[in-house]
Amino acid sequence: MDRNMTKNGNRAVLLISCPERLGIISAVSNLLFSYKANIVQFDQHTTDSRDGMFFMRIQFDLDTLPEAYPKLAQDLSAMAEEYPMEWRLSKESQIKRMAIFVSKMDHCLVELLWRWKSKEILVDIPMVISNHPDAKETVEAYGIPFYHIPMSSQSKEESERAALALLQDKVDFIVLARYMQILSPRFIAKYPNQIINIHHSFLPAFIGANPYQRAFTRGVKLIGATAHYVTNDLDEGPIIEQDVIRVNHRQNETDLKVAGRHVERNVLAQAISWHVEDKVIVYGNKTIVFA
Amino acid sequence: MDRNMTKNGNRAVLLISCPERLGIISAVSNLLFSYKANIVQFDQHTTDSRDGMFFMRIQFDLDTLPEAYPKLAQDLSAMAEEYPMEWRLSKESQIKRMAIFVSKMDHCLVELLWRWKSKEILVDIPMVISNHPDAKETVEAYGIPFYHIPMSSQSKEESERAALALLQDKVDFIVLARYMQILSPRFIAKYPNQIINIHHSFLPAFIGANPYQRAFTRGVKLIGATAHYVTNDLDEGPIIEQDVIRVNHRQNETDLKVAGRHVERNVLAQAISWHVEDKVIVYGNKTIVFA
Amino acid sequence: MDRNMTKNGNRAVLLISCPERLGIISAVSNLLFSYKANIVQFDQHTTDSRDGMFFMRIQFDLDTLPEAYPKLAQDLSAMAEEYPMEWRLSKESQIKRMAIFVSKMDHCLVELLWRWKSKEILVDIPMVISNHPDAKETVEAYGIPFYHIPMSSQSKEESERAALALLQDKVDFIVLARYMQILSPRFIAKYPNQIINIHHSFLPAFIGANPYQRAFTRGVKLIGATAHYVTNDLDEGPIIEQDVIRVNHRQNETDLKVAGRHVERNVLAQAISWHVEDKVIVYGNKTIVFA
Amino acid sequence: MDRNMTKNGNRAVLLISCPERLGIISAVSNLLFSYKANIVQFDQHTTDSRDGMFFMRIQFDLDTLPEAYPKLAQDLSAMAEEYPMEWRLSKESQIKRMAIFVSKMDHCLVELLWRWKSKEILVDIPMVISNHPDAKETVEAYGIPFYHIPMSSQSKEESERAALALLQDKVDFIVLARYMQILSPRFIAKYPNQIINIHHSFLPAFIGANPYQRAFTRGVKLIGATAHYVTNDLDEGPIIEQDVIRVNHRQNETDLKVAGRHVERNVLAQAISWHVEDKVIVYGNKTIVFA
Repeated sequence: MDRNMTKNGNRAVLLISCPERLGIISAVSNLLFSYKANIVQFDQHTTDSRDGMFFMRIQFDLDTLPEAYPKLAQDLSAMAEEYPMEWRLSKESQIKRMAIFVSKMDHCLVELLWRWKSKEILVDIPMVISNHPDAKETVEAYGIPFYHIPMSSQSKEESERAALALLQDKVDFIVLARYMQILSPRFIAKYPNQIINIHHSFLPAFIGANPYQRAFTRGVKLIGATAHYVTNDLDEGPIIEQDVIRVNHRQNETDLKVAGRHVERNVLAQAISWHVEDKVIVYGNKTIVFA
Repeated sequence: MDRNMTKNGNRAVLLISCPERLGIISAVSNLLFSYKANIVQFDQHTTDSRDGMFFMRIQFDLDTLPEAYPKLAQDLSAMAEEYPMEWRLSKESQIKRMAIFVSKMDHCLVELLWRWKSKEILVDIPMVISNHPDAKETVEAYGIPFYHIPMSSQSKEESERAALALLQDKVDFIVLARYMQILSPRFIAKYPNQIINIHHSFLPAFIGANPYQRAFTRGVKLIGATAHYVTNDLDEGPIIEQDVIRVNHRQNETDLKVAGRHVERNVLAQAISWHVEDKVIVYGNKTIVFA
Repeated sequence: MDRNMTKNGNRAVLLISCPERLGIISAVSNLLFSYKANIVQFDQHTTDSRDGMFFMRIQFDLDTLPEAYPKLAQDLSAMAEEYPMEWRLSKESQIKRMAIFVSKMDHCLVELLWRWKSKEILVDIPMVISNHPDAKETVEAYGIPFYHIPMSSQSKEESERAALALLQDKVDFIVLARYMQILSPRFIAKYPNQIINIHHSFLPAFIGANPYQRAFTRGVKLIGATAHYVTNDLDEGPIIEQDVIRVNHRQNETDLKVAGRHVERNVLAQAISWHVEDKVIVYGNKTIVFA
Repeated sequence: MDRNMTKNGNRAVLLISCPERLGIISAVSNLLFSYKANIVQFDQHTTDSRDGMFFMRIQFDLDTLPEAYPKLAQDLSAMAEEYPMEWRLSKESQIKRMAIFVSKMDHCLVELLWRWKSKEILVDIPMVISNHPDAKETVEAYGIPFYHIPMSSQSKEESERAALALLQDKVDFIVLARYMQILSPRFIAKYPNQIINIHHSFLPAFIGANPYQRAFTRGVKLIGATAHYVTNDLDEGPIIEQDVIRVNHRQNETDLKVAGRHVERNVLAQAISWHVEDKVIVYGNKTIVFA
């Protein structure tokens, strides 16, 4: 974990994915050494050492980062043609901008606002968008703009257009903090692997609606929650984090919902932290999390 | 928990299920008091205090248990007509007889044999039955009879008949310790709520075959195991116990299987302990576990 | 668990502790039956069936509870002379009044305020008292009175007197939500087994100050939190609840503090819920929790 | 995790510890690249990017490993003078040799023997040594030599001398699987950071004798186990792994011991796996575990 309470202006994270090939670690570490970068943490994973996929996360400090950044990015681009690799270089000082979408239930929203205020999750929150007006007061008490955009099956296209207009150029990623609407493929395409949803079951169990009711009926002994990136396949996107909690026969359906809330907010907050700290690489329908 | 290392000749457990009705606790406790029974532990659960179902487990000591048992059973029968209730009275000194069915993988089998030998699970094991000869030596080293009954889709009826003949009058309940055959409704009907299976996923996720492979493909962050009573609906019987373990991107499918083994054997052993100690009441497709 | 979102005017909880004696369950259940009380949940524990201690919690519904309460209490008093037993009869409709003491760190405070507002913890909060002014705005935003009572070693007696004056007749129990002052025996004596503290370690490890620093230095792989009743022996009171979280070498001391916060607030909130629902019986320096 | 069921003759692990210095990752990865080594997994941790300690684990495949090993080791020696660094290069094909010391309780022993037989822990076990004769039959059933060396305070020096003679040149590391004797500094000095003990509490709680009894008396809600390297300070050595299990008021001291067994054997087996796979680096009194 890496929960520094203040951002380091000289710190950056480099994420690389590519087909396995000899010498890539050597090449990248030589490049960083040529800049005199101090490597703080280096994580690498290969699905297969011969013909698998290669994933790497390097966190480093570089005194001259602000000036050196453009040249370093250029060097990485050149390297990317040779290998070929996908890469992303994030300056820790460049705070990510997170929009929160919420419906009526506010437990995840409140958790995120509190972690934002206490600087546990280091993001900017330019706006909260809801299809209900209920959370307006809570959100504005934190000095964050709140937008109420009603949603109905008829108005969906128009509503999403309104939301996209608000988000445009202001937001890097979106969190669905118990947002009870299904986003259209058109919307999702604007934020690929940049929309995080919390589902209130340990997916793939109880995919779809009313997971707590179905968990109660099935008589499971554990209930859970799953944070995942949103794709066009409902509840089928790459899983970032999951957790469960033990329940028993004394708990009725309402009790399960209440117990589940605490798992939901912890799982969602954890997934967001990893996303913000550039610890998650999506590969196919799975995630590599360098936690 | 109640893992006494030796059985108490004067201890008994009374399990009662019935539609909720006023005065039942009073009636039952008066009856036990009239016998001068010392109540050790009393657990009761009502699904709804007005018109729900009522479940009760009373563990008690009675100096004269061996002599008093028949009369007490008679009194309970009389009471059962009045209320009406289902009941079961088990003497702790009457050791339950457990058969183990196993296929090739022996991790659950070995765990159960070890817990049996170390008196953690207080049962008799009159036999182990397998559709493969592999476990013969392991089982016989414990002095337990091993029967190899090959199974094929053609021979199924005959093989089950052979197994039932072996079990007849010798066994109270059956544990499927990674037994990779589906029992017929005819077989299951002989042991209602007396066959415990371990499924290698946190049901209802990954119902059916190859759960670890599917868990790997789906990229879940937790894998689990589920112990349940066997019914005619495959993997759908009443769940007794479940648990999970955290996994990550470094673990391939084989690693998941290995990690899962340890959850499987713990979950199965726990479920068996509760069953043996008369802590489980089946109601509909769910269990009440007075753990 | 029993997290009803609204209080039931006819529901009550009876707690009983006494030396083990034959017939007590029968006597109590007959008494309740004579009132036509519907028993919702019945939990009983005996440390030893011959000469141990006996603990019982009965949750019941009684249509005439408001009128019948005084007579029932009188009957229990009479019974208490015979057995002899300690007992407490709580009407669920009589909301407990909880004061919160806090210092500078507000994570536990915020969690409790949120659970109070969302009716997960059904209490009244007549006041929050702090030795620092920091939390004033947060508390008053919830419409709850906030009192700043500075504390120094010189002013301790006077400050405690001021706090006691505020609490008098207004508060049933006190929660120390990361309150970094040691209460005097004189203060504690006013609220025996009615002051709940959260300690930021899995006691008895790291008793005393700076547990996270000491956990980091020792290199433990789990950190935890402990909610306990306050006694005159610092960090030695009866434990109500504990939990832990896994940590690793990547986390520095600050990271441990942040990770620990989430355990602290969950453990404290859980302990308070059990206390409020009359599920905790203190016996010697231990607790029986009928969770 | 990395639990390959068979050893890879071309696979090696390089562990490096040194004071943080610019360019070390670059230097090491260039060296490995010059051998055409395929890096499978690369883990690195720095306590502080300026003047901290640097730890690294590189798992790699090298077709010519058997031939290239001596030259590679020579190159690493040369590099170690420049930087300066401590390093260790382990061939996966070189199976580590593990001795088990045990007293009367055999639950950890049995777990290890089973994991050894099922190839979950890939070691050779040249011998089991015990101060009691009890485990002889169990051990020899696995075809492993068993030595009974009685221990008394008078005979300690002599007994340890006898044990050391047996171990000499035959064993790489030692596991104390509930071995109830304290080893002398003289003995420990022969196997620095190569003796793994399982302590039956979540250290540092309940250091010393009878932790379950003390846990019961204190009324903790979690009991645990700790695997650590043995040093001259009893129960104070570097912690490798810890875990806990939830307990409640129904469990007496014997129940705690039984419940704790399962934590003990899992924690010990996990720690051994990490040790065997060269995933543990000891630094001061702490461990870095690249799990």
